[in-house]
Amino acid sequence: MPVGPIRTALKVDLDKPAPSQAGLHNRWHPDIPFAATIQPGEVVTIECVDWTGGQIKNDDSADDVRDVDLSCVHFLSGPFEIPGAEPGDILTVEIQDVQPFAERPWGFCAVFDKKNGGGFLDEEYPQAAKAIWDFEGIFCSSRHIPGVRFPGLIHPGIMGCAPSTELLAEWTRRESELVATSELAKTRDVALLPEPKSIHAGSATGELKAKIGAEGARTIPGRPEHGGNCDIKNLSRGSKTYLPVHIKGAGFSVGDLHFSQGDGEISFCGAIEMAGRITVKFDIVKNGMETLGMKSPVYIPGPVEPNFGPGRMLTFEGFSVDSAGKQHYLDVNVAYKQTCFRVIEYLKRFGYSGEQIYLLLSCAPVQGHIGGIVDIPNACTTMGLPMDIFDFDISPAFASKNGGVTKMDLGSCAYTSDRK
Amino acid sequence: MPVGPIRTALKVDLDKPAPSQAGLHNRWHPDIPFAATIQPGEVVTIECVDWTGGQIKNDDSADDVRDVDLSCVHFLSGPFEIPGAEPGDILTVEIQDVQPFAERPWGFCAVFDKKNGGGFLDEEYPQAAKAIWDFEGIFCSSRHIPGVRFPGLIHPGIMGCAPSTELLAEWTRRESELVATSELAKTRDVALLPEPKSIHAGSATGELKAKIGAEGARTIPGRPEHGGNCDIKNLSRGSKTYLPVHIKGAGFSVGDLHFSQGDGEISFCGAIEMAGRITVKFDIVKNGMETLGMKSPVYIPGPVEPNFGPGRMLTFEGFSVDSAGKQHYLDVNVAYKQTCFRVIEYLKRFGYSGEQIYLLLSCAPVQGHIGGIVDIPNACTTMGLPMDIFDFDISPAFASKNGGVTKMDLGSCAYTSDRK
Amino acid sequence: MPVGPIRTALKVDLDKPAPSQAGLHNRWHPDIPFAATIQPGEVVTIECVDWTGGQIKNDDSADDVRDVDLSCVHFLSGPFEIPGAEPGDILTVEIQDVQPFAERPWGFCAVFDKKNGGGFLDEEYPQAAKAIWDFEGIFCSSRHIPGVRFPGLIHPGIMGCAPSTELLAEWTRRESELVATSELAKTRDVALLPEPKSIHAGSATGELKAKIGAEGARTIPGRPEHGGNCDIKNLSRGSKTYLPVHIKGAGFSVGDLHFSQGDGEISFCGAIEMAGRITVKFDIVKNGMETLGMKSPVYIPGPVEPNFGPGRMLTFEGFSVDSAGKQHYLDVNVAYKQTCFRVIEYLKRFGYSGEQIYLLLSCAPVQGHIGGIVDIPNACTTMGLPMDIFDFDISPAFASKNGGVTKMDLGSCAYTSDRK
Amino acid sequence: MPVGPIRTALKVDLDKPAPSQAGLHNRWHPDIPFAATIQPGEVVTIECVDWTGGQIKNDDSADDVRDVDLSCVHFLSGPFEIPGAEPGDILTVEIQDVQPFAERPWGFCAVFDKKNGGGFLDEEYPQAAKAIWDFEGIFCSSRHIPGVRFPGLIHPGIMGCAPSTELLAEWTRRESELVATSELAKTRDVALLPEPKSIHAGSATGELKAKIGAEGARTIPGRPEHGGNCDIKNLSRGSKTYLPVHIKGAGFSVGDLHFSQGDGEISFCGAIEMAGRITVKFDIVKNGMETLGMKSPVYIPGPVEPNFGPGRMLTFEGFSVDSAGKQHYLDVNVAYKQTCFRVIEYLKRFGYSGEQIYLLLSCAPVQGHIGGIVDIPNACTTMGLPMDIFDFDISPAFASKNGGVTKMDLGSCAYTSDRK
Repeated sequence: MPVGPIRTALKVDLDKPAPSQAGLHNRWHPDIPFAATIQPGEVVTIECVDWTGGQIKNDDSADDVRDVDLSCVHFLSGPFEIPGAEPGDILTVEIQDVQPFAERPWGFCAVFDKKNGGGFLDEEYPQAAKAIWDFEGIFCSSRHIPGVRFPGLIHPGIMGCAPSTELLAEWTRRESELVATSELAKTRDVALLPEPKSIHAGSATGELKAKIGAEGARTIPGRPEHGGNCDIKNLSRGSKTYLPVHIKGAGFSVGDLHFSQGDGEISFCGAIEMAGRITVKFDIVKNGMETLGMKSPVYIPGPVEPNFGPGRMLTFEGFSVDSAGKQHYLDVNVAYKQTCFRVIEYLKRFGYSGEQIYLLLSCAPVQGHIGGIVDIPNACTTMGLPMDIFDFDISPAFASKNGGVTKMDLGSCAYTSDRK
Repeated sequence: MPVGPIRTALKVDLDKPAPSQAGLHNRWHPDIPFAATIQPGEVVTIECVDWTGGQIKNDDSADDVRDVDLSCVHFLSGPFEIPGAEPGDILTVEIQDVQPFAERPWGFCAVFDKKNGGGFLDEEYPQAAKAIWDFEGIFCSSRHIPGVRFPGLIHPGIMGCAPSTELLAEWTRRESELVATSELAKTRDVALLPEPKSIHAGSATGELKAKIGAEGARTIPGRPEHGGNCDIKNLSRGSKTYLPVHIKGAGFSVGDLHFSQGDGEISFCGAIEMAGRITVKFDIVKNGMETLGMKSPVYIPGPVEPNFGPGRMLTFEGFSVDSAGKQHYLDVNVAYKQTCFRVIEYLKRFGYSGEQIYLLLSCAPVQGHIGGIVDIPNACTTMGLPMDIFDFDISPAFASKNGGVTKMDLGSCAYTSDRK
Repeated sequence: MPVGPIRTALKVDLDKPAPSQAGLHNRWHPDIPFAATIQPGEVVTIECVDWTGGQIKNDDSADDVRDVDLSCVHFLSGPFEIPGAEPGDILTVEIQDVQPFAERPWGFCAVFDKKNGGGFLDEEYPQAAKAIWDFEGIFCSSRHIPGVRFPGLIHPGIMGCAPSTELLAEWTRRESELVATSELAKTRDVALLPEPKSIHAGSATGELKAKIGAEGARTIPGRPEHGGNCDIKNLSRGSKTYLPVHIKGAGFSVGDLHFSQGDGEISFCGAIEMAGRITVKFDIVKNGMETLGMKSPVYIPGPVEPNFGPGRMLTFEGFSVDSAGKQHYLDVNVAYKQTCFRVIEYLKRFGYSGEQIYLLLSCAPVQGHIGGIVDIPNACTTMGLPMDIFDFDISPAFASKNGGVTKMDLGSCAYTSDRK
Repeated sequence: MPVGPIRTALKVDLDKPAPSQAGLHNRWHPDIPFAATIQPGEVVTIECVDWTGGQIKNDDSADDVRDVDLSCVHFLSGPFEIPGAEPGDILTVEIQDVQPFAERPWGFCAVFDKKNGGGFLDEEYPQAAKAIWDFEGIFCSSRHIPGVRFPGLIHPGIMGCAPSTELLAEWTRRESELVATSELAKTRDVALLPEPKSIHAGSATGELKAKIGAEGARTIPGRPEHGGNCDIKNLSRGSKTYLPVHIKGAGFSVGDLHFSQGDGEISFCGAIEMAGRITVKFDIVKNGMETLGMKSPVYIPGPVEPNFGPGRMLTFEGFSVDSAGKQHYLDVNVAYKQTCFRVIEYLKRFGYSGEQIYLLLSCAPVQGHIGGIVDIPNACTTMGLPMDIFDFDISPAFASKNGGVTKMDLGSCAYTSDRK
């Protein structure tokens, strides 16, 4: 009994506006109509637009990044009904492949303007920047960051099942409380609450669409109860993820495909964002949340991750003392920021700009580890940089032997037209 | 020209009190007399006591852990003079091997009492606990945590060069400021300031010893300018670390040997602590801090780390929503704590106690990664648990197939005699 | 300067007979007209038919295998002209991706009849058999060999540059000599000499085609001077191969795509054969044969091979004592054959037939190593079998704990209709 | 219940002649008295002399290699009685560690004279040569082959259980038959039959010793029924081997410790031979030969093998066309020999002598794979060379960029005093 070609459960049209396509949506809500049905055990391909719905162009200006409309992101494919899935079950998702579209072999990573999106290092890099990446099979390279080339650990940034009405209410409650009570909320966004503007609720219209706009959870944060925008680079080909189910039929959505990403996705739009196809197979573990003792997703990576060998990772250490010399108490965020700065300083010597490196650390397969988190007052984190992604020798041994490094002309990433 | 046996640059005596051994010290200070001299390029072995200087016994009670004297830790071997090293240079340290003493093939990991040391999860696990690990070549197993066995990613928790007078002053300044200004400091230690009690300054006596006691930096935290207590599990056999030099002769010290550790060393005394030997070779990069653009240590791991295969890591996700349902803003510490809880809940189903798992996650080679750190308001972290360290099948696939798991009798870790 | 979509340098038509397609050919000869031109540095995709040109069907009978016409294989895509390449140069081929056609997500592996093709174990398995494999993204599974599933180490079995007239003559000389002098040649084919029957010389017709048919080297064997049908499973995504150039323009050809293969491809048609696309980029090393000291191809594998972890490879040993108890002198072939038998015996216990395992060892990513080759009179070889490709536990530890194994119903591979 | 130090089941004395030590023996025979008893489940350390019993010195002459007495090798430690083991059982051997003696941190690899031992390439390299390797923890380097340094994949070359009387007779029968019938036997040793000269039978004396000398199987070859001298480099730390038992008490012996070895151990004395200690734990699978379907040993490697990353292996191809241009029929030995020559030619360009490379390929962790073994008439084999063991860049990419390589002064290995 030969098996036929793999069914495409959802097609997208890259030439049509994302908000006009009924198989896409940009909020989490239990009432978004199912876009299609996928049987457990069926192998299907799902097409996805890039997370911004095509706002970013393959050119040499970052103006589109500076002006990006973030109220309309992320455009997700789905929700898909998985017959048989019920609240309390676990939906397993085996990712069998992720591919860019053959006719669109490129992606982008970007630094957002601090006033429109921001990022992990936005105090230091407040203005927008962009790099376009060309895909050559499993590899990618960028005219905006010459000298590097690496295989993609390709993955979806977002996967999750729809929340129940109760869960949605809880998300809104706790995120509203943060906004209401956070000092920081006076000077910057600390959470994004439901926002009717730019709402796209799939095939929903009228009152239903308005309800979803009023109540629907934004897709920016991952959330413990369903996963969502986890931005975990290892959810790649061959991985299997166990997702909690909160509504009948599961309501699985996926999107935000990344050709590659570094741990932390530090520039926020830091992965190599792309449109493309994902091939998946679902299964259901009845009553799995209880049986497997799960409150948040778990996953098993696939067996084919890029393996540079441990001895080829140049690893930087950072501690929770900030750039002004202020000591923070076991603060991993401060430590990881410092770790990033150490890498930036190191790579600048070769001729890269800070923005180029900031972009690179966001999208190359760097390993961000929690080192020590108990040695008061300093947290220690590390960032491992695979030396073999560079086409020149960045090792300290090479620099030591040659008494330093030679500064090269390493071009420029894309900046905004109004950059000072 | 045959090469002779490897020289032991420092011997320790496990039967003598650590404070009485002139080759050990327990503070960072530029004036601690050199314990010995090691030439660049020379291969030497250095012996080390365990970090507590022998306070913890191979028995089935955690009373010694509860009552541990933390004012006297860590006992480090050194400082060693490396002729030719000067401030501004980089000292490279190639770790060629780390071994426990053949006559002492065991180590310990422990949960400290919240009032004496604490740890990452001390709100939930406030009382002392302990597990003894027996070494069988590259493997270890514990009568206190049956069912697991793994190869050690053996490493020193602490390596660093002595601070200069100026650097020492800066450390004290910023840590004092934290203590003075932190709200949290009212209820718990947030930093450990210089403390004359239990000072051991190697061969220094009298006034010099008193001066070192008054000024010397505590060894608990790693610090960005020299490394120190980084507790990075990957500084193992074959690794090469680049350490900034701050005084003439470098004043390299090493200690806190770990047979194995998980990312974060979450229970604080969480690695498998041991006495043993480390074989190293030094080299000097003249003016390396400038040439290599380095403010903090960097390292390259060795090529022989345990490789379980990516597809054998069961990986848990955690987010910055705490156990009470409170939303935190991009807080990696909260997220990693939640990640730990997810693993604990998962493994408890098999019959382990919370303390057993807390200990296990501290010392087994778990991978703690920073997932997404920019998706406001949720940080996402992951913990990868190698499934092959268990002698039963912990995979969710196995549980799914069998409709759940069978609770087993998995013994007990060591508790205190006064445990409620 | 955005880069456009990747150009397809050659298209094939799966619905047209392979011999009628001008971009294909099935002999090595310097005079086969170039099928297309590809510039050094250009990224292109090349389409390929399966090696038999579509003779094998996705069904449950091995009659097509038994009756396969081997005089017409392999159908290769090319030859491609690489401007600038000259004799003595090296052509580098970076394989950027290999993919099956989306509309044809299946492949086949087969045991040939001993009288028509044969294979490594044809004394023991003289009759034809077949297994069809379905592709699910990076994974494949077969209704004919249930219980296994693995990611493909996808690669072309054949890559090479066209021989010069002189080189072609040398090939014919030495292979004719073997046929003329070999005892074994009386009972079986020991080499395949030029054969006008079924010749396909691309766009050549008339006299030129007849000349190529009379002189052209068969594509079955790999040959030291140019590579060709090496069947090296590691020439996969990301690999870079250095190929000697023998004619102006190189005349690069490629084909015999494999979704997966085990070391040795023991059943001859043992890889998972498929039609598909390969994406490549060429470069030229002028005078590289001398500069690089190369007489045969060398390659560097890509960084993304499946990594099961060394501790998950169940490895079998075999020695050069044959099944009749006869001692052979350091004969690796005998040893490897015995190694295969050891695996077959081991896996038969679970319910597989010998043919199923013979097929499986040919196409799954088994590692065939030369152990000891100097300990007279026994050569020792090993075959490492990744345990994680099975969905049941094949480890000896599991069998030991359970007092043996349970024989299962594991179906059947496809056999011929006249099987006795 | 604390566990004590690990027991040493057998000590050797490096200052006493090997033939005078009762715990050693150099033949396989069921009647060699047990040297000691080791319980199943007990962790013990066994000391071993080097395989020649100390004949090779740490100096710069290969005269000792030329004149080595091969009638007395290998000196094995044992046989050990494992209570409970009976014929038909399987003895599992978990190797927990292998270490050189701290006071003897060096080993040797050698090319034997063609007339006394020979090796895989003895037609081309007929004279003795030697390299001494110094151990620095997990690494080794040699004054005789400068420019390389690598971590050892440390392992015993020989492990096995004693043969039964019947099995011994069968070995002698088939090896005698080979000697009697082989053409090649007229010009070189093709097997080594029982040889009373230099017999060492442990504590046996008088008639028993004479019987063992007359009947005992030589230890040079591995043999399918028990393993023995397999020279498999992956039987390293953490591996678990399943060995058939042929006599009551098993009679396990071990020796021929190697600090490192390449696949094939091509120069015969090609591993880095050393004296040292091995730590093991045994277990018994009752009736395991039947239960596990085993006729020859199987093993599972440990999880800590050196991992250079697949993309760091420069891999050479070889085919079964010999250096004189003669075509051989699917002959893996010819192909692997050619593969070795390709590596030798490649590395000679940097300044190494042929002997230096021959030695290096024997002992460095090169991967020798069987590529294609069915494409008549050419077998294809590969040898993967980890580029990171060199302290200069051997990649073809580097040479291409620089228009070739610079010949260096790379010293000399040790030769014999009478070398022409």
